[in-house]
Amino acid sequence: MTRVFNFSAGPAALPEPVLRQAAEEMLDWHGAGCGVMEMSHRGREFMSIIEQAEADLRELMAIPQNYRVLFLQGGATQQFAQIPMNLLGSGSADYLVTGTWSKKAFKEAQRLAGPLGGTVRLVGSTEAEGFTRALRADEFALDPQATYVHLCTNETIHGVEVGDDGLPPAVAPLVADMSSHILSRPTDVSRYGLIYAGAQKNIGPSGLIIVIVREDLLGRAHPLTPTVMDYKVMADNGSMLNTPPTYGIYVAGLVFRWLKAQGGLAAMEKRNIEKATLLYNFIDASGFYRNTVEVGSRSRMNIPFLLQDDALNEAFLAGANAAGLTQLKGHKSVGGMRASIYNAMPIEGVRALVDYMRDFAAQHG
Amino acid sequence: MTRVFNFSAGPAALPEPVLRQAAEEMLDWHGAGCGVMEMSHRGREFMSIIEQAEADLRELMAIPQNYRVLFLQGGATQQFAQIPMNLLGSGSADYLVTGTWSKKAFKEAQRLAGPLGGTVRLVGSTEAEGFTRALRADEFALDPQATYVHLCTNETIHGVEVGDDGLPPAVAPLVADMSSHILSRPTDVSRYGLIYAGAQKNIGPSGLIIVIVREDLLGRAHPLTPTVMDYKVMADNGSMLNTPPTYGIYVAGLVFRWLKAQGGLAAMEKRNIEKATLLYNFIDASGFYRNTVEVGSRSRMNIPFLLQDDALNEAFLAGANAAGLTQLKGHKSVGGMRASIYNAMPIEGVRALVDYMRDFAAQHG
Repeated sequence: MTRVFNFSAGPAALPEPVLRQAAEEMLDWHGAGCGVMEMSHRGREFMSIIEQAEADLRELMAIPQNYRVLFLQGGATQQFAQIPMNLLGSGSADYLVTGTWSKKAFKEAQRLAGPLGGTVRLVGSTEAEGFTRALRADEFALDPQATYVHLCTNETIHGVEVGDDGLPPAVAPLVADMSSHILSRPTDVSRYGLIYAGAQKNIGPSGLIIVIVREDLLGRAHPLTPTVMDYKVMADNGSMLNTPPTYGIYVAGLVFRWLKAQGGLAAMEKRNIEKATLLYNFIDASGFYRNTVEVGSRSRMNIPFLLQDDALNEAFLAGANAAGLTQLKGHKSVGGMRASIYNAMPIEGVRALVDYMRDFAAQHG
Repeated sequence: MTRVFNFSAGPAALPEPVLRQAAEEMLDWHGAGCGVMEMSHRGREFMSIIEQAEADLRELMAIPQNYRVLFLQGGATQQFAQIPMNLLGSGSADYLVTGTWSKKAFKEAQRLAGPLGGTVRLVGSTEAEGFTRALRADEFALDPQATYVHLCTNETIHGVEVGDDGLPPAVAPLVADMSSHILSRPTDVSRYGLIYAGAQKNIGPSGLIIVIVREDLLGRAHPLTPTVMDYKVMADNGSMLNTPPTYGIYVAGLVFRWLKAQGGLAAMEKRNIEKATLLYNFIDASGFYRNTVEVGSRSRMNIPFLLQDDALNEAFLAGANAAGLTQLKGHKSVGGMRASIYNAMPIEGVRALVDYMRDFAAQHG
């Protein structure tokens, strides 16, 4: 078995110790005589797994007591509908658009707003500039009556990120899609009304999404909200109105423990800065590769880059694959390459990528 | 490692060879250098997995060409809403209620029908009799104009099953919750408009649901349907509008191959009849245990039974656990015990259960 350095944007590489443990426990979890996939979700074994996962996530992110943690299904795309169904009411919500994902979220909310009896506003967008930067607070005026303000704090396709220091003013509850950078850095949860993140990038397998929601936002769902999509119902039922995605929650829990063993989110941030700096510095100095995102908006997780000549793309990818550096093809809407370097990507993987890129540029530059 | 005989109603026991293969491939699938959980859902490796899974399921169930197979999230509980959102329109749907699950489906549809602009009718229920039998065709009159007729063909909690021969007349598309007996017997798919089944009983891990839908039923969704819940959108996108639950689909695919290796559904039905007959015959003859379901309605998958004296329940469960027979506690709404004996339960497990039950009765009878 040879493991590659896997730069997939998601589903993405997971820490090897997590996968080894999952494999070892596949047929028998802690002497239960069966694997996690085969356990009743209401039995004491699985209850201990989900409770530990929540406790570890709360500790890692220092989630305040007045926030609920939900383990749900359907991915961020379902949340694009679920958020207005739960929160919009007859009010108006503001959307910031800084890439493909926040644009999709806005489009879905816009489609549903009328039938829901509310309104959504696009208050700012960087689309005209090709989604190459975050929005600055002086570029838009939020509605002080907004029911919520939606943004995506890390755009997986365009490689645009904002941390807590880049957030819009807190005139209304912030609702943030953190799918592709959750757990990559400390986050002040209290600055958000709702955080959501599909698991398949920095948490675990696809099919699980984590929602962290302030309690006062529960209980406002539109009558046409499916019961299983009502945050309050799910909060009241410990994410178990129905059978949750048990195996995904188990793997997520293993990832949370791995993160704690790595030193938590401050330690992860340090490593992630180191990894991203290494790659950005190389790209910027290369004269052969380029990243077009404004420096202050660059993502530490998803780093798109272009070659000097698009005609070299196929050769670049073929050589990378041969060198055990996989999934580097950029999203078709952006072109070029993209290196996703989530928590599970070790610095050695980024070094190997830079070495390969240097050699490739030397041969083709 | 000692594997128990696990009688959980779901998530439920999976075939050991499937779990062994999943464990072996956890870090490296077929030389890809990464596991299935870490693969892009749009890469050729995962595309080959989902395509093979669909092809094998189509072969196993002989699914006609005019039916689409969808791999979705959210479980049967989400389908209880998704079905009326997609199919009800301004019309009326008929619901048959024969246990907890069809009752839940009816309640959710009833709650949503008004806001959707349609109507649902409860055309027959066995609740007054404690859900101890299926409905007979002469007990209810279906609306010939119904947009669909909903039923649950195997009630997991009450242990009531109908096969194709027990279906209501085909005056409207039949929509069937087959969560707990799909793949346990041959099914004539052409008799249904839509079949749905949560994976966590006879297919694979929780977090995946399979929908098999006739093409002419696509494209009728209410405007407030989340895009990710619109069957037509999902059919048009090969179940990949967003990231599907990739690992669950992979495990489901392994189960489908295992079923083919076992001889397919006709062979499984033969074994399931043998297993169920062994247990029911023992219960009926015991004078100590009893199953209260009408003989012609008895489920081959979920067999609830009561002891002579409820005061013995705890001792029964403790002894069973000690004998490696787990998850036998009945659902709280029914009491007593329940043995779920899905495809993955070997005849040896049922024999071991009967042996234990015989000994227990001898000691306590």
